[in-house]
Amino acid sequence: MPESIPIDSVGLVSPQVYKFDEPLTLRSGKVLPNYQLVVETYGELNASKTNAILICHALSGDHHAAGYHDEEDSKPGWWDSCIGPGKAIDTNLFHVVSLNNLGGCAGSTGPASINPETGQYYGPDFPVVTVRDWVNSQLRLMDKMDIPEWAAVVGGSLGGMQVLRWAISYPERVRHAVCIAAAPKLSAQNIAFNEVARHSITSDRNFHNGRYLEKGTYPKQGLMLARMVGHITYLSDSAMRAKFGKSVSDFEQNSSENFGRDLRTGTLSFGFNVDFQVESYLHYQGERFSENFDANTYLLMTKALDYFDPTVDFEGDLSKAFANSDCKFLLMSFSTDWRFPPERSREIVNALLKAGREVSYLEIQADQGHDAFLLAIPRYIEALSAYLKKVHEQSDQNAA
Amino acid sequence: MPESIPIDSVGLVSPQVYKFDEPLTLRSGKVLPNYQLVVETYGELNASKTNAILICHALSGDHHAAGYHDEEDSKPGWWDSCIGPGKAIDTNLFHVVSLNNLGGCAGSTGPASINPETGQYYGPDFPVVTVRDWVNSQLRLMDKMDIPEWAAVVGGSLGGMQVLRWAISYPERVRHAVCIAAAPKLSAQNIAFNEVARHSITSDRNFHNGRYLEKGTYPKQGLMLARMVGHITYLSDSAMRAKFGKSVSDFEQNSSENFGRDLRTGTLSFGFNVDFQVESYLHYQGERFSENFDANTYLLMTKALDYFDPTVDFEGDLSKAFANSDCKFLLMSFSTDWRFPPERSREIVNALLKAGREVSYLEIQADQGHDAFLLAIPRYIEALSAYLKKVHEQSDQNAA
Repeated sequence: MPESIPIDSVGLVSPQVYKFDEPLTLRSGKVLPNYQLVVETYGELNASKTNAILICHALSGDHHAAGYHDEEDSKPGWWDSCIGPGKAIDTNLFHVVSLNNLGGCAGSTGPASINPETGQYYGPDFPVVTVRDWVNSQLRLMDKMDIPEWAAVVGGSLGGMQVLRWAISYPERVRHAVCIAAAPKLSAQNIAFNEVARHSITSDRNFHNGRYLEKGTYPKQGLMLARMVGHITYLSDSAMRAKFGKSVSDFEQNSSENFGRDLRTGTLSFGFNVDFQVESYLHYQGERFSENFDANTYLLMTKALDYFDPTVDFEGDLSKAFANSDCKFLLMSFSTDWRFPPERSREIVNALLKAGREVSYLEIQADQGHDAFLLAIPRYIEALSAYLKKVHEQSDQNAA
Repeated sequence: MPESIPIDSVGLVSPQVYKFDEPLTLRSGKVLPNYQLVVETYGELNASKTNAILICHALSGDHHAAGYHDEEDSKPGWWDSCIGPGKAIDTNLFHVVSLNNLGGCAGSTGPASINPETGQYYGPDFPVVTVRDWVNSQLRLMDKMDIPEWAAVVGGSLGGMQVLRWAISYPERVRHAVCIAAAPKLSAQNIAFNEVARHSITSDRNFHNGRYLEKGTYPKQGLMLARMVGHITYLSDSAMRAKFGKSVSDFEQNSSENFGRDLRTGTLSFGFNVDFQVESYLHYQGERFSENFDANTYLLMTKALDYFDPTVDFEGDLSKAFANSDCKFLLMSFSTDWRFPPERSREIVNALLKAGREVSYLEIQADQGHDAFLLAIPRYIEALSAYLKKVHEQSDQNAA
């Protein structure tokens, strides 16, 4: 944590655990007999209960979206750039709900939890969960929290897919759907990258068919590789160029940003050590991630991405999927995002328009690739902020 | 081999081995005391020795560029689409020389060869080789073959980088430089993908610090993963879409092209089996490759790519590098190549123009991504063919 809590931070926060004893039937047909979800909230629910916003996290996110858990924390929650008093998702105005999804590894029931039927870790026996299953579990959470409707459901990337599913499955419980840097379903290239990530995990000698926790080991190398591959797809080519330059000689002019390259010589190693900043950066990202994330959860999250297809009950027609989605929509995309590029958001926008929905769409010029949705890019933050201010004014009118 | 040899095939071919006993000092400063290069030639050298073309291979290529080794071969050499009687690189007109580069694993001295100093496999002791080292070894080969100059040096991707190095280091020995789908040096993203590939190999339990051959084992999983990652970058997003569709449901309409998906049900597995064609395809490509390629060679080839930078002796100025390159240039790129996209070729073209060189440049509209340079795309083949016909006419005039 910084020496003093910034004025626009939600400050110290504590997660709460919600337990669910009613069995949940998943899309696969499997049944979770019971489960828990770990949740954080920021800002107060108003008396009329019209100001709640649900935050849906992406592949590696969790419930800790804003603020600090304790005074030792060096970093705030993953979306602190957007959530706080006076920020785009303004906790002076909204009651913000953020959960760790089912199958996660940050406190909600997932592969690293104990399977009540066996007394062992779920591990690979934890069922495959889909975006639809998550939204169903979020609906139950909402009921338990006694929230009648969401002023908005907001998410980026895989989080944006949950937003779309909310608008399709439970439109009567959502007033605004804010879907950022997402896609209506994955491309073959997206699936290919996910499969490489999965294969790198499952072929790690320490994976043990997913039973590594029982064995007291961990597929660290595999998870590290999976994250390295993922990380390349989150950054744009131009962002990488700006961050790392193009060659050893470029780095020499820029050595303050040097990530572990041999500073003594500044020359090529002519070996298989790290020669370029971008290599150290990827190692660092992969290493850090693999220390804090469950490999089975990573597998589940990538499958949820691959399986996402809201048209499956609508003859492949996305506009039909939105036929009853009478909430309002805000779509945003980023110009250099090559994982879920602007044209994928436009596919969604076109389907919404064809379905006669009310939709705003903004393509943000940003150099940072897919990662942009997590960053404090002024035009992006301003647009989200302006949109949600209107959402709040409407909440007030509804409450009046 | 097909039942009968096609009329435009070079037919049955046999590689020859050239041995070099003079030590070769590499860019790293290390010295190879002796080495051999394995070579194939197609078509006859004319009396005036003006019609020789050198083919430079890319990351996974070798000397076997055209024709068949024996009647059991199911596939011809890797560039058979371009090399043969009447083809773009016309063996009725040209004497085509194709070699396996130093460090390779198809017969030239490399990590899987015996180190004469130890009597053991070189393995990780084989020195890092650069594009410049390859060109120096190709120059010696040329002298040994008694070829005074190349009518053209031709290559795609990493092969195109050798072409550029020829034009810079030995312009007096090259009349035409044909550089296809290449880049003046790698981007940070290119290097990042290479580093993921290397990391997947070196973290394989069977890698044994590169001494897997001594141990009688092989880092098959790591090499497979490396190839899977590579393969994604060779194909365009649109090519993948065309080849694999977007979802399980798309594949159902297209089951004749199905790669191993569960044909019985056509439904999602809700597990970690293969659900999508693109996954099986990548597995298949990775599997096949990892059975036939040396992992240490793969490491070397990716480092040669990362290290390529022809401006290193010219203050980072590519046009200065070409100041003495008085051969003629043909550059070609492919519209959907995102590994080495057209703008990278244009960087080369612009530097050549600035240096006052004679250069033709063609951007081919093609859906197949980087892989396009290996395919029989009509406009591409026609352009290469037309260019080389002129090269031949000039050879004749020179000889006359």
